Amino acid sequence: MDGPRQGDVFGELLRDALAVRTGVGPRPLVGGRLPRPVIEIIERDDGLINGAPAEHYLDGPEQWEPYDHRAVHRASGAVLDVGVGGGRIALALQERGVSVTGLDISPGAVRVAQARGVRDVVCATVDEHVGQGARYDTFLLLGNNLGLLEGRGRAPEFLAALAAMARPGAQIIAQGTDPYGTTDPLHLTYHERNRRRGRLGGQLRLRLRYRELSTGWFDYLVCSTDELGQIVAGTPWRLVDIDNADAPFYLATLRLVGP
Amino acid sequence: MDGPRQGDVFGELLRDALAVRTGVGPRPLVGGRLPRPVIEIIERDDGLINGAPAEHYLDGPEQWEPYDHRAVHRASGAVLDVGVGGGRIALALQERGVSVTGLDISPGAVRVAQARGVRDVVCATVDEHVGQGARYDTFLLLGNNLGLLEGRGRAPEFLAALAAMARPGAQIIAQGTDPYGTTDPLHLTYHERNRRRGRLGGQLRLRLRYRELSTGWFDYLVCSTDELGQIVAGTPWRLVDIDNADAPFYLATLRLVGP
Repeated sequence: MDGPRQGDVFGELLRDALAVRTGVGPRPLVGGRLPRPVIEIIERDDGLINGAPAEHYLDGPEQWEPYDHRAVHRASGAVLDVGVGGGRIALALQERGVSVTGLDISPGAVRVAQARGVRDVVCATVDEHVGQGARYDTFLLLGNNLGLLEGRGRAPEFLAALAAMARPGAQIIAQGTDPYGTTDPLHLTYHERNRRRGRLGGQLRLRLRYRELSTGWFDYLVCSTDELGQIVAGTPWRLVDIDNADAPFYLATLRLVGP
Repeated sequence: MDGPRQGDVFGELLRDALAVRTGVGPRPLVGGRLPRPVIEIIERDDGLINGAPAEHYLDGPEQWEPYDHRAVHRASGAVLDVGVGGGRIALALQERGVSVTGLDISPGAVRVAQARGVRDVVCATVDEHVGQGARYDTFLLLGNNLGLLEGRGRAPEFLAALAAMARPGAQIIAQGTDPYGTTDPLHLTYHERNRRRGRLGGQLRLRLRYRELSTGWFDYLVCSTDELGQIVAGTPWRLVDIDNADAPFYLATLRLVGP
């Protein structure tokens, strides 16, 4: 039994999803003939595995959840779309005449976003991008990308990096999910195990897989708005609004403190 | 990192797929709210992983591939549906007035098939079922279940078990897929590796995963019709017909030699 190979899972996944959607380029096939749906596979470190169809990364506004529309309406000034992916949010902002830069660590995602028409895309981590000197009024962390805060350890660094790129009065609009409404014993046990290890209950340890590729294991934070409030305290940001209209999904708005 | 737990992957998957389809019973949800598509995850021992939506196991004849219709038309007499799964084939046979027994090693699949109306279902392996004394005119191995032959080693035993349950003149109708039309380097490399190890090129070593559960690793044969002919030689069966109209998918008909 060989293991999977480390690689640009998300980029390969998006490239294939785009080929399936447009009918252009090589696509995964069953029996060399029938199109195979492109499915993102998410493994959690307790052995849980889930598959999720990847099309949603390319969805236009007609297919979005309501909170995505509300997030885009709140964006203003120069926007950094953190985790631009296939560019669904950045494209909608561009169409509204909003100035947006897409940031992603996946080279393949950056290529897909560009191919779909996102004009300003950067392949870098948030920390790397700080050094480039660009400044922003709005940071978007949509598609559950509040998870990029990872946990209590990483969040202050991540939020400091955004603050270093922030213009006065800048905002972060982050979409999260409250994980604690579940009654599924599998998740309840996982949350409890995390807490015993000093982690937040919904601090997921995940890896993504697609075909022969895997990412390394990484932390991805799914937290309540109370937990988010505690994480933000002591950072250059203040939690100024929670839009809970689509609970358990929420939009958190953080505002840069001070002059 | 814990591994997945061994369990009735296929049964759990079918139960959830049925709950999603009927809206009855607990269903997998995202964020405790949005229905999550039920996806079967298939790992190959070279690290390849694929997800496949599970709905097709419950598809009615309207959604079937053409070769499934032709297979059902060829079934006659007392039928054993080997790997009855969610019962899609057995239900169609029942409606046509054909006498059919569904066989599956998954207790959960047997429950789903029964819940959907399959009247005669047995939870057992082929070898276990031989001892029960029932005799059949047609054995169906559909949904790629030619794969149950596993490889050169297991195939003669499996075919002997079917012969032990066969009435004079009995037939096996098995659906397979020719794996060798692919140009995907991932598959070409796998086939070559298999051959170096004395296995058939398309002798897949797989495990299925769903949520926290995994099967053990098992062999599943995807072979050409030439390879099938070689496998069948020396068994109590003769390969009498190949229906290749939907290549690379095919229906192989084997006839009992003798009396």
